[in-house]
Amino acid sequence: MFDSVPVPPKRLEEYRPIVGDAVIAELKELASQLQGARVLHLNATAFGGGVAEILTAMVPLLNDLGLVADWQVIKGANEFYQVTKAIHNGLQGMFVSWTPEMVATWMRYNQLNADLFDQPYDFVVVHDPQPAGILRFLENRQARVLGKRWLWRCHIDLTEAQPDIWDFLRPYVDAYDLVIFTLDKFVKDGLEGPLVRIIPPAIDPMSVKNTPMSRESVENILRSHGVDAQRPYLCQVSRFDPWKDPTGVIDAYRLVKRSFPEMQLVLVASMAHDDPEGWTFYERTARRAGEDWDVHLLTNLHGVGNLEVNAFQTAAEVVIQKSLREGFGLTVTEALWKERPVVAGHAGGIPLQVRHGETGYLVSSVEECAEQIHFLLRNQYAARTLGKTGREHVRENFLITRNVRDYLRAFVGLL
Amino acid sequence: MFDSVPVPPKRLEEYRPIVGDAVIAELKELASQLQGARVLHLNATAFGGGVAEILTAMVPLLNDLGLVADWQVIKGANEFYQVTKAIHNGLQGMFVSWTPEMVATWMRYNQLNADLFDQPYDFVVVHDPQPAGILRFLENRQARVLGKRWLWRCHIDLTEAQPDIWDFLRPYVDAYDLVIFTLDKFVKDGLEGPLVRIIPPAIDPMSVKNTPMSRESVENILRSHGVDAQRPYLCQVSRFDPWKDPTGVIDAYRLVKRSFPEMQLVLVASMAHDDPEGWTFYERTARRAGEDWDVHLLTNLHGVGNLEVNAFQTAAEVVIQKSLREGFGLTVTEALWKERPVVAGHAGGIPLQVRHGETGYLVSSVEECAEQIHFLLRNQYAARTLGKTGREHVRENFLITRNVRDYLRAFVGLL
Repeated sequence: MFDSVPVPPKRLEEYRPIVGDAVIAELKELASQLQGARVLHLNATAFGGGVAEILTAMVPLLNDLGLVADWQVIKGANEFYQVTKAIHNGLQGMFVSWTPEMVATWMRYNQLNADLFDQPYDFVVVHDPQPAGILRFLENRQARVLGKRWLWRCHIDLTEAQPDIWDFLRPYVDAYDLVIFTLDKFVKDGLEGPLVRIIPPAIDPMSVKNTPMSRESVENILRSHGVDAQRPYLCQVSRFDPWKDPTGVIDAYRLVKRSFPEMQLVLVASMAHDDPEGWTFYERTARRAGEDWDVHLLTNLHGVGNLEVNAFQTAAEVVIQKSLREGFGLTVTEALWKERPVVAGHAGGIPLQVRHGETGYLVSSVEECAEQIHFLLRNQYAARTLGKTGREHVRENFLITRNVRDYLRAFVGLL
Repeated sequence: MFDSVPVPPKRLEEYRPIVGDAVIAELKELASQLQGARVLHLNATAFGGGVAEILTAMVPLLNDLGLVADWQVIKGANEFYQVTKAIHNGLQGMFVSWTPEMVATWMRYNQLNADLFDQPYDFVVVHDPQPAGILRFLENRQARVLGKRWLWRCHIDLTEAQPDIWDFLRPYVDAYDLVIFTLDKFVKDGLEGPLVRIIPPAIDPMSVKNTPMSRESVENILRSHGVDAQRPYLCQVSRFDPWKDPTGVIDAYRLVKRSFPEMQLVLVASMAHDDPEGWTFYERTARRAGEDWDVHLLTNLHGVGNLEVNAFQTAAEVVIQKSLREGFGLTVTEALWKERPVVAGHAGGIPLQVRHGETGYLVSSVEECAEQIHFLLRNQYAARTLGKTGREHVRENFLITRNVRDYLRAFVGLL
């Protein structure tokens, strides 16, 4: 047995006013074929990141629909996480050295976790590369007793994956019945065993990050982090990381500030204590900001959590997501859901969400970014229209109920 | 029993070429009266900070001198360290709220540690406020069985201590036989029980931080941290903390750079992961530096440890320690020992080390700091002379052997 992650229950009925009767009806229809089905979601961490956010919403909704879903976390230790971090980076296109010792460590922990696997499930959904080997390490017959159907859910953009790492991982992935990718273009060639499905991620409109906030709560939060609630601000929520281009955001803000001297900029990031690179990019960002204290650099170290992110997105004049490379970009979804006009980089899954001129603007340079912001600041009506269209686009495509539906369809397809 | 901190042995004879025969002879003379005496140094942490550095050198030297010395660390948990951090800040003059819950926590952990105390010693040296209550929490008779003589070593500048915290602590301190302060002016009035001694801190000339380095090793380290070894640099080694005035150092560097455009600045700091204030001041420093990449902000997060500090001090054109408030300032001692000209703030224990115009320059403003650096850069002979005098001043007064001597004298005085 692994450790179950305790998640508070959720009621699907509460989503009806948001998503409408048809969506609820379809979910119930699909679930009727899966009553009592035992579903295990297995991943490496209960905290942080989009995967944890999605499971926190999806697992209780599956239970409310009559399935028996659980979310468990594999066992690991520092040496294992070092290796899986390298795998993660290498699959995202960074060069990492991939050694026999790393192979041995990954295999040892996957074997260990396979040995801990002792409860039967109808569907086992294994998330990301960390525990991907468990299926192969269960002996074949036992694997089919413990999990009737095995799904591997890859949340990573594999487009630029380092070949030796993907080649190592592929045979483990090939053993699954179904593999789920976020985008069409992330699907890897050469997988022979499994079926493939595309399921984009989604946000939970009932989560602390996305439920509507009162003006008063929002302004209290702005004030307590030194942001002037009486003056407009631009906002980007992203790690300090060159692919998120925080220095480019500052440059665009500076261009905007020439015509809008009242403008502020709020950059919100989550910092990991054990990530020296994160600190290097934080330093670059802080130095680009210089002593312009209208630029606010806020992190979890300043007590910025989900509620604060909600507040900063809610009251932003324009939300920026100037990514140069991006998996999907759930922060864009969050901003669109809050009817914010979004100016975002033409990268990864962002164009799925931001349809240029319809639900936001796609840009490829600092100058374009500044121009589009200028335009939005001068055209409040256009800004409002984008925001409203963006919210409907999210309602249709990127809410957690659509995600639940896609999983139910995948399960039904494997019956 | 507490956990013993394992420290590698040291041989006093190795210090003879550095400190001379007379010093060695005096140490042996004093130690001859203490052969076999069991000494316990008890503090709260084995890592980081000046106390750990001093004990790492002093404990093995006491053993080499024929005493039986040990260094142990008390047991604690997060709630206790929260309280002792507040005590530390409050004693240093910061306002902290001092609540009955904090009192209860501190007392509970001191009682717990008193209960763990089960080995007899001739001298117990308790460092700093964290474990200061252990003596009172041992029942009186038992205290004198387990420790014949009790010493409390205070490493903190108590000049501005918050009264309610010191008033709370005083009765616990009053139970000791001897209390040791760093400077005369740190001695608190109102202690009735103990004798008082003044023992300034000291550096270990044989430590990685202070042994001579080859030019090649130094330049390798500079290069690997992006510092141009062909161009001069100023250096300050200090936490990012308003009392160390890193932004003032950057301002002084800027004034200097007007006449010496080749000049670089290296700020080296140790950052604690769990110290949000540290990050705030890091941000202020980085923003003051702006995108002048001749200003290098280096920390343990970039892999800067003792050897690197040694290198940066060794090759600095001028070492700055522009403190506005300072306990003693061991980084000044380290720089003087390396014959570096030092420009330092007129604060705390710095004037003991930097005698203005003799072993360095004392300054009270950014402009003075820049002027004295200017002067030193233009007067290489003066700079060299200061450096040499500084080294002799440290040899005489601030090497670990003098520290060992003072402790031996304290022990002998209590026989």
